Amino acid sequence: MPTDIEIARQATLKPITEVAAASGVPDEALIPYGKYKAKIDRDALPPAAAPGKLILVTAINPTPAGEGKTTTSVGLSDALHRIGKKTLLCLREPSLGPCFGVKGGGAGGGKSQVMPMDEINLHFTGDFHAITSAHNLLSAMIDNHIYWGNALEIDLRRVTWRRVLDMNDRALRQIVGPLGGVSNGFPRETGFDITVASEIMAILCLASDLKDLQKRLGDIIIGYRRDKTPAFCRDVKADGSMTVLLKDAIMPNLVQTLENNPAFLHGGPFANIAHGCNSVIATKTALAMADYVVTEAGFGADLGAEKFMDVKCRIAGLKPDAIVLVATVRALKMNGGVAKKDLTEPNVDAVRKGAVNLERHIENLNKFGINPTVAINHFYLDTDEEIAVIQEMASKFGTDAVICKHWADGGAGAEELAKIVAAKADKGADFKPLYPDEMPLADKIETVAREIYRAESVTMSPAVKSQLKQWEEMGYGNFPVCMAKTQYSFSTDPTALGAPTGFDVTIREVRLSAGAGFVVAIAGDIMTMPGLPKVPSAEAIYLDENGQIEGLF
Amino acid sequence: MPTDIEIARQATLKPITEVAAASGVPDEALIPYGKYKAKIDRDALPPAAAPGKLILVTAINPTPAGEGKTTTSVGLSDALHRIGKKTLLCLREPSLGPCFGVKGGGAGGGKSQVMPMDEINLHFTGDFHAITSAHNLLSAMIDNHIYWGNALEIDLRRVTWRRVLDMNDRALRQIVGPLGGVSNGFPRETGFDITVASEIMAILCLASDLKDLQKRLGDIIIGYRRDKTPAFCRDVKADGSMTVLLKDAIMPNLVQTLENNPAFLHGGPFANIAHGCNSVIATKTALAMADYVVTEAGFGADLGAEKFMDVKCRIAGLKPDAIVLVATVRALKMNGGVAKKDLTEPNVDAVRKGAVNLERHIENLNKFGINPTVAINHFYLDTDEEIAVIQEMASKFGTDAVICKHWADGGAGAEELAKIVAAKADKGADFKPLYPDEMPLADKIETVAREIYRAESVTMSPAVKSQLKQWEEMGYGNFPVCMAKTQYSFSTDPTALGAPTGFDVTIREVRLSAGAGFVVAIAGDIMTMPGLPKVPSAEAIYLDENGQIEGLF
Repeated sequence: MPTDIEIARQATLKPITEVAAASGVPDEALIPYGKYKAKIDRDALPPAAAPGKLILVTAINPTPAGEGKTTTSVGLSDALHRIGKKTLLCLREPSLGPCFGVKGGGAGGGKSQVMPMDEINLHFTGDFHAITSAHNLLSAMIDNHIYWGNALEIDLRRVTWRRVLDMNDRALRQIVGPLGGVSNGFPRETGFDITVASEIMAILCLASDLKDLQKRLGDIIIGYRRDKTPAFCRDVKADGSMTVLLKDAIMPNLVQTLENNPAFLHGGPFANIAHGCNSVIATKTALAMADYVVTEAGFGADLGAEKFMDVKCRIAGLKPDAIVLVATVRALKMNGGVAKKDLTEPNVDAVRKGAVNLERHIENLNKFGINPTVAINHFYLDTDEEIAVIQEMASKFGTDAVICKHWADGGAGAEELAKIVAAKADKGADFKPLYPDEMPLADKIETVAREIYRAESVTMSPAVKSQLKQWEEMGYGNFPVCMAKTQYSFSTDPTALGAPTGFDVTIREVRLSAGAGFVVAIAGDIMTMPGLPKVPSAEAIYLDENGQIEGLF
Repeated sequence: MPTDIEIARQATLKPITEVAAASGVPDEALIPYGKYKAKIDRDALPPAAAPGKLILVTAINPTPAGEGKTTTSVGLSDALHRIGKKTLLCLREPSLGPCFGVKGGGAGGGKSQVMPMDEINLHFTGDFHAITSAHNLLSAMIDNHIYWGNALEIDLRRVTWRRVLDMNDRALRQIVGPLGGVSNGFPRETGFDITVASEIMAILCLASDLKDLQKRLGDIIIGYRRDKTPAFCRDVKADGSMTVLLKDAIMPNLVQTLENNPAFLHGGPFANIAHGCNSVIATKTALAMADYVVTEAGFGADLGAEKFMDVKCRIAGLKPDAIVLVATVRALKMNGGVAKKDLTEPNVDAVRKGAVNLERHIENLNKFGINPTVAINHFYLDTDEEIAVIQEMASKFGTDAVICKHWADGGAGAEELAKIVAAKADKGADFKPLYPDEMPLADKIETVAREIYRAESVTMSPAVKSQLKQWEEMGYGNFPVCMAKTQYSFSTDPTALGAPTGFDVTIREVRLSAGAGFVVAIAGDIMTMPGLPKVPSAEAIYLDENGQIEGLF
């Protein structure tokens, strides 16, 4: 079997101008970044016909075995092209920093990848650098405001806006500064997060246009004043400059799949403290350009799909027409209690036992009005009996479960899935979010925990409750909630695989992302600045004699 | 008079593909970044004919009146094109962060500007972001090495490698971290500099190719071990990844002047703790493509031109064929003691008095074997009598002093200068650096201070002397010295204008840039992380209804 990088290197990329032309993007709307990447100027696009159908790709809870959600998104998109459907793929763009910790993620795998892998994983079109700059400009302006007299009376102990770098750097998590005396400012505790955790990343991905972007940036709460009222980004007059810094980053990035089909890679917010989906602008631009848009959400369906629908779709006025739920035999076996080293052995019972995870996700997605299609992302060791277990279970819900071989065969391996999903999308769905805007914040949290996670109880301290109450009084009560919990389990215990019951969900902390437009409810350890491992992959990355990057993948 | 920004907005830019084609850059060597910026892949350029002539533009000591060094570089380049000379302009690229403090610099002014001004001043082609990433990756790998056991036995108190951001943020100058206990690491004092002060910026600008870049990155001293021996970047195995991060940044950026002539903007190291010139790669690529290459050095000739010749030319094996020394009547009047508010009054005596500054620079440049041409950058209030004083003084040295009106008239206003300078460059010069490689480091410092600044004495503490001795023993004795002092005076007192004498130069501190390849001698207050002013220009920057940036210039 060739590796992902070997397959990638054998690929023949088309100039991005050709990919764009084939997608109906006129020259004047194309802003090239090198030969194989471009940004799309929406204002220069031809008027849209009827908007396309939106297809969400989500998955069972992730396991170390891998479920292949991005791979399936790519394969499905390529397959839709093969069956003659005008399709656009919308994915998140990866973060640079973590590539130097563990090996770079690329986008997709096998014969279902997005190209050019190395550029996508490195600086790409500079979007994340622009977000880093905009974020840290605001940070500098806050400390500068305090330095020059602090007219806003910002409480030094209550500055909530930190700084960011697109780097795994645990040493910056918690710092004290500025030190060095009068000329540097007033010392306080602060720290750095990784750029994808910046509220600006979430804002960029939820904004409808530049004007909305600037409004949301202005709405960011940077901290609290001595009288405990919030201080906003617009109070330090940073929103205009930040918008200027983000004016190119807001434009979707066009790249191509191995089969030379178009893909937007745009935005990449954290899927725990943020909503984990590509930008609204990319999705809407794609819907205006294509008949079918394939997009994905972070983590499993309990976190990613729920946020896709309750946060992204709600805020952007979008609705999914079909959902693909990705599962693998191997991942279900792990959910059924098999250790990773034993996955090569056929084990029908373990698949049956683990299928409860898939089952619960199917039930959950039906609560949003959409019966998903299960994509069984095929691995060569899967047996017919194991697959039959999944199909049998799915049939109880009237759900198709289709074997997909796009990893090995590219789009040709996902044609059956494409036909079924296109038909379902054409038929449409009766989408509804899980809870109404008007529901009190605490009830929204409880609704997600009980309906989606199946918690028996939800615990919120008086402090958390009164904080939520206060935000409701401040006018934020109509915000959706963004749950931050482990992605490995329906519960808050990452080791409780399958379909755990009888557990409590404790909300340790709540945070307000006033600019992005959601309330974050934290039910677990959330790391917003990763560290590097003992032997970072960076140690083995280099340019070879031919200028080819080694060690990144 | 229209403002710079008004002139810029009326300009008709050509697609960068056309600018490239007119300069002989084949399509396969052009990597577009949007419609008006591109990177040049040197490996895809046609073989060079005889290398072009190198023309350095430098200036008298800067004053608040402005001397117009970059403007003159642009005007001269456009004028050379007008008189039929195949010319390429090489400038530094500006830093993003400071644009939010005081208004953005653009490149040039009046009818002699480089375009597109806003993109050049914002993210441009991402070079500085790449340098920021590479720098901070090394920082993260150092703290990570310490965290995981510190096999190199790096002394926590002697880590010299800091972090960088392309931002004016005084609050980051001095910090303590990581705090927060075992999971974050070992607390120590550290801080951030602005990206242009990174040694990586200097390295990128001095490297001859990717291989040399990686070697120089590996040579960086990150700090000292418990036994006081140095620890290098390559000891933490960061050099390969850093090179990968910089693989695009090392390629020169092509833009155009208002007259649609080509310009490379590439690299922008500090002109105090570093050498203040655009990249060697851009200069050499330009020399291979054009018959005349116009480039500039930072600050006045005492700092900028000296470093251009003793650092950049020495390390890169370059030699200037002609030098243009820019002066203005107004700046000479200020050197002659006139206050800024009184500059509108004609004052022949003050010009005569201030011309001693110009005179000393002419003498100094002759020490490198090159008699410069003085460009009198014309201002509409200059009188014939004032100009005559300058020309008379210059004639004592056999030096032409040419009135240039490129600010008002573009290239047409600098044709006389172009003719004289082209003729001089054709004739060539007998360039020699100020001191030989073999001279001891302390003597090199003393030579620059006495020969160029005209110091009466040079003071170095025993600690400084023994440090220099130690570096000589470590094998760094052949490095050139990079002087860091005020740009406003020949002396270390920024208020001592004209041609001060009888002063002492005290070397407060020396630093080793082992990767860049020079020893920094600090004779004054050197700020490597600027702060924002009380009312940062960022407060007034915004995108107007037409998507045009307001307030940046």
